[in-house]
Amino acid sequence: MERPRHQGMAKNTYMRWRLPLVCLLWEVAMIVLFGVFVRFSPEADAHWEEEKHEMNLTSDMENDFYFRYPSFQDVHVMIFVGFGFLMTFLKRYGFGAVGFNFLLAAFGIQWALLMQGWFHSFKSGKILIGVENLINADFCVGSVCIAFGAILGKTSPIQLLVMTLFQVTLFAVNEYILLNLLHVKDAGGSMTIHTFGAYFGLTVTRILYRPNLEQSKDKQGSVYHSDLFAMIGTLYLWMYWPSFNSAISDHGDAQHRAAINTYCSLAACVLTTMAFSSMLQKKGKLDMVHIQNATLAGGVAVGTSAEMMLTPYGSLIVGFICGIVSTVGYVYLTPFLESKLHIQDTCGIHNLHAMPGLIGGIVGAITAAAATEDVYGKEGFIKAFDFTGMYQTRTPSVQGGFQAAGIVVSLLMAFAGGAIVG
Amino acid sequence: MERPRHQGMAKNTYMRWRLPLVCLLWEVAMIVLFGVFVRFSPEADAHWEEEKHEMNLTSDMENDFYFRYPSFQDVHVMIFVGFGFLMTFLKRYGFGAVGFNFLLAAFGIQWALLMQGWFHSFKSGKILIGVENLINADFCVGSVCIAFGAILGKTSPIQLLVMTLFQVTLFAVNEYILLNLLHVKDAGGSMTIHTFGAYFGLTVTRILYRPNLEQSKDKQGSVYHSDLFAMIGTLYLWMYWPSFNSAISDHGDAQHRAAINTYCSLAACVLTTMAFSSMLQKKGKLDMVHIQNATLAGGVAVGTSAEMMLTPYGSLIVGFICGIVSTVGYVYLTPFLESKLHIQDTCGIHNLHAMPGLIGGIVGAITAAAATEDVYGKEGFIKAFDFTGMYQTRTPSVQGGFQAAGIVVSLLMAFAGGAIVG
Amino acid sequence: MERPRHQGMAKNTYMRWRLPLVCLLWEVAMIVLFGVFVRFSPEADAHWEEEKHEMNLTSDMENDFYFRYPSFQDVHVMIFVGFGFLMTFLKRYGFGAVGFNFLLAAFGIQWALLMQGWFHSFKSGKILIGVENLINADFCVGSVCIAFGAILGKTSPIQLLVMTLFQVTLFAVNEYILLNLLHVKDAGGSMTIHTFGAYFGLTVTRILYRPNLEQSKDKQGSVYHSDLFAMIGTLYLWMYWPSFNSAISDHGDAQHRAAINTYCSLAACVLTTMAFSSMLQKKGKLDMVHIQNATLAGGVAVGTSAEMMLTPYGSLIVGFICGIVSTVGYVYLTPFLESKLHIQDTCGIHNLHAMPGLIGGIVGAITAAAATEDVYGKEGFIKAFDFTGMYQTRTPSVQGGFQAAGIVVSLLMAFAGGAIVG
Repeated sequence: MERPRHQGMAKNTYMRWRLPLVCLLWEVAMIVLFGVFVRFSPEADAHWEEEKHEMNLTSDMENDFYFRYPSFQDVHVMIFVGFGFLMTFLKRYGFGAVGFNFLLAAFGIQWALLMQGWFHSFKSGKILIGVENLINADFCVGSVCIAFGAILGKTSPIQLLVMTLFQVTLFAVNEYILLNLLHVKDAGGSMTIHTFGAYFGLTVTRILYRPNLEQSKDKQGSVYHSDLFAMIGTLYLWMYWPSFNSAISDHGDAQHRAAINTYCSLAACVLTTMAFSSMLQKKGKLDMVHIQNATLAGGVAVGTSAEMMLTPYGSLIVGFICGIVSTVGYVYLTPFLESKLHIQDTCGIHNLHAMPGLIGGIVGAITAAAATEDVYGKEGFIKAFDFTGMYQTRTPSVQGGFQAAGIVVSLLMAFAGGAIVG
Repeated sequence: MERPRHQGMAKNTYMRWRLPLVCLLWEVAMIVLFGVFVRFSPEADAHWEEEKHEMNLTSDMENDFYFRYPSFQDVHVMIFVGFGFLMTFLKRYGFGAVGFNFLLAAFGIQWALLMQGWFHSFKSGKILIGVENLINADFCVGSVCIAFGAILGKTSPIQLLVMTLFQVTLFAVNEYILLNLLHVKDAGGSMTIHTFGAYFGLTVTRILYRPNLEQSKDKQGSVYHSDLFAMIGTLYLWMYWPSFNSAISDHGDAQHRAAINTYCSLAACVLTTMAFSSMLQKKGKLDMVHIQNATLAGGVAVGTSAEMMLTPYGSLIVGFICGIVSTVGYVYLTPFLESKLHIQDTCGIHNLHAMPGLIGGIVGAITAAAATEDVYGKEGFIKAFDFTGMYQTRTPSVQGGFQAAGIVVSLLMAFAGGAIVG
Repeated sequence: MERPRHQGMAKNTYMRWRLPLVCLLWEVAMIVLFGVFVRFSPEADAHWEEEKHEMNLTSDMENDFYFRYPSFQDVHVMIFVGFGFLMTFLKRYGFGAVGFNFLLAAFGIQWALLMQGWFHSFKSGKILIGVENLINADFCVGSVCIAFGAILGKTSPIQLLVMTLFQVTLFAVNEYILLNLLHVKDAGGSMTIHTFGAYFGLTVTRILYRPNLEQSKDKQGSVYHSDLFAMIGTLYLWMYWPSFNSAISDHGDAQHRAAINTYCSLAACVLTTMAFSSMLQKKGKLDMVHIQNATLAGGVAVGTSAEMMLTPYGSLIVGFICGIVSTVGYVYLTPFLESKLHIQDTCGIHNLHAMPGLIGGIVGAITAAAATEDVYGKEGFIKAFDFTGMYQTRTPSVQGGFQAAGIVVSLLMAFAGGAIVG
């Protein structure tokens, strides 16, 4: 008996050979590159048993795995279930959104391990990977998922894979410029993930503008159950965002603080989203699209500053503002972008990622510039901003300036990259 | 192009201004109060780097974050996805249940951080928050979600927010009386969360009794997919309940034990629920409502005792009994409460939270009264019940008495509070 | 008011008394056996406070709970949500699949705690359980869930429970032979869980062959939302598989390595699944059933070797191959098994668990045989394969031979056991 088959994905007959060929060739390339370059980091290598003695570690708990693995799994859920299901609100693209998100993310993480590895974990000719690399690969792919939200329904799987390849590459370059050359802090990726990913996607969708897409508008209608599926995506993103922003922060207080700040910001964001959604709608109804998206803006906007001493009330203020900005964006800005600037932003990523990402970059720059030894403590101050080695003499205000430069670089990279790919 | 909008929430035209105003005003009040009172706990503050030296901590792993964060995230999922989706079984309230649960929980956790902070984490004029506070805030809001289950479909969002404000306040007072004044153990909240929350909600729904609600009965019908969505809620509550009951237990063996006891109790509860569901139905069919709810009673009923030496078979016995009590409650008690006592219990929280919560309080009192130094070990005995300082001389039987008093206090607070709010 | 009831499960009128009786009797038996045998392991017992001093442990973090609990919760989600929802793709069995999976798993874990406890955690007349036992019980039940996938829709709940009882028993015996007698490594259960579970289920379904089942084929049709629900199952299995394969590995580098290898294998598997799904379908459409299932084969196939020094590129190669084997299996082998061998494999477990499980066993044997002190380090080599005590002189090639013997034993146990139960 043949299994029943329900085909919901793109029906391009050319795909029959092109998609398989691209997938297989790329996977073979990955295997070859991994074979040449990728090995385990010392903490994942069987030699660790000896290394422990050399480093005088008394407990297996000191392995970075235990500091980061729970956060890694939360981030993993955000990328595959969170972003995947968030996009199911469209009546016709439900399965396609989840399925293509799955495909591009699975491909993207492999390429990200390589690209980020060459820039950050390259030692004597090998990329040494551990759990932090897995998180960073997921982060990198997260920025592709964001961009995917803008072009959902407009591209073939092949085009998506090509976009993934380029975006991951540019992401790694941009990240390298920010974190290594500018020595900028961005643990939750307001700049590297959200600002970069969103403006990249918006540039691509601008170039792919198709006026006749207007006609297939009914395809974009949502149905009742689609909204509940999308809500699964929303809630997993919302709940796990504290893990996202704390996943690669320094061990100890920084991870702890990042989770608390994010929790506070997100809680405030829900209230202002509901308030403005109700206020801006006829008859005061709440709009599901706002609840599914704008409630998350608070997490995006503390991405840079969550691990700093932003304080809980500072986080509430950021969340307060972002719920408003994001909801207002959905009501007024998205239609404007479409009609005047010909930017068809299917999932409204400009409101959820682009603007809150920019705000996040700015909040990060201000928080860094306002840092004092009094607030952080002498040692905490140095540790929080890595003011060691060649950065020993950098002052908070200079750090703030570099943080601001990081925003500009991310924007430029996104526009340039998006234009090329588009 | 305007985004498609699908409005499923309440349509009160007055809401247009009232909901936004209430949300914005309250959020501003939160920001002011957080600004005045809330700071990071030492383990989340950048000064921790120095504190570590003073406390001779050799590892970042000693930060409470690593002991509790994975459990926190599980609890977070229970509150937002678990309780939210559990209530989607109603055909018409699906999105409303998830959305309003989201709103009240996001508001409630902020107020809970303040209220619980003033009672438990107040030092030199400031509330110092860490991951344990986040868990406690989620717990507190959990009791509101429980009460929400009784009045689902009967209140406007504004009324819900007002109820949340009052219930969180009373929760914190009740918790203070139990944990601090009576020195009672209740890590999984059989009394403070479930008994209090459920009887609070039942009192409110009794006062809100509307006979004509009967007519809109068809609204309460469930549909096939609603049942699968509700099952997502059920399963996440069921799977993560071991984290719920162990989240704020003492580090080490207590957390370990609490998880095991809860795991055992829940497993037994599934079998007796299925047995009685099948037995009490015509033709032996299984009732989805029972499977979605009564299977969880075993987690509620070991809330107080899970961290004690309840032993795995003790847990099985508790789960065994609660599956029966809860299922029988759905079949006989809920119709009786409605027809005779005019208590419309939409989600049947009397069967899932009220009765199992009471059983949990009683089991906790018995387990505490039966404790011996032989079973706990000399040091373990003192640590498990905090028999230090002014409680140095308290005996297990006295502790059992105080535990029982805790049940009574929780009940009285719930009735009084529910009557005022209703 | 009576709650609305929506009955989706089996309607056998005889069930009215048989299912309740079986459930209650078995649960009573569990309570008695737990009462006689099961106690807390030292790390979950209140005496641990004293034990810590004796073992010179300075931190509560050394409790095994913190090494394994996050992985345990992930595995728990895989068993109850992962396997449960994976089977919802069938139009008519959606709720039944989730509900019966819930019932058999809740029963199975209790019996597994006893069976595995007698073999592995039995000390002075008592089974001492800790978090590792909970994980192993979930693993054991996982193999029953796999077998359930083959017979979905063909059996009554009672038959399922009987099958669970027998399969758990045989699982424990087979596991004992492999891990203790043959001293084989199989942390992720390629052999003990997947190969054994799948061939057990296939043998049972062969014996239960009913030609007229063909006629109810329409029941097996899938609908749009069913596919999204099934995708929830798929994604949770896919995302948490690194936790599955690392959950009971040695503390430290082994857990770390197992997670990385699994992550890599799964990523590669997605690409080859998509490639072959598209290639083998008319018009190049992607088949949802392949995406829902074959993408997971990469996790199954590194179950034995993930904790070894398989290396990331080795994992990619395994995932690459398994995506192909599994997808080709769905297209050609499942119809063949049904028409020629009369094996009705409802969920295609032969493609997802049986073949990849065998490959996993073989990859494990090869990886073990190829191990050298150079690659593992002197201490790491001994630790990775437990070459201590009576196994002090075992060489890698001998270990590889025993690993291969483990595959054969698992197969024989599965065929024999399945035949008896069927």
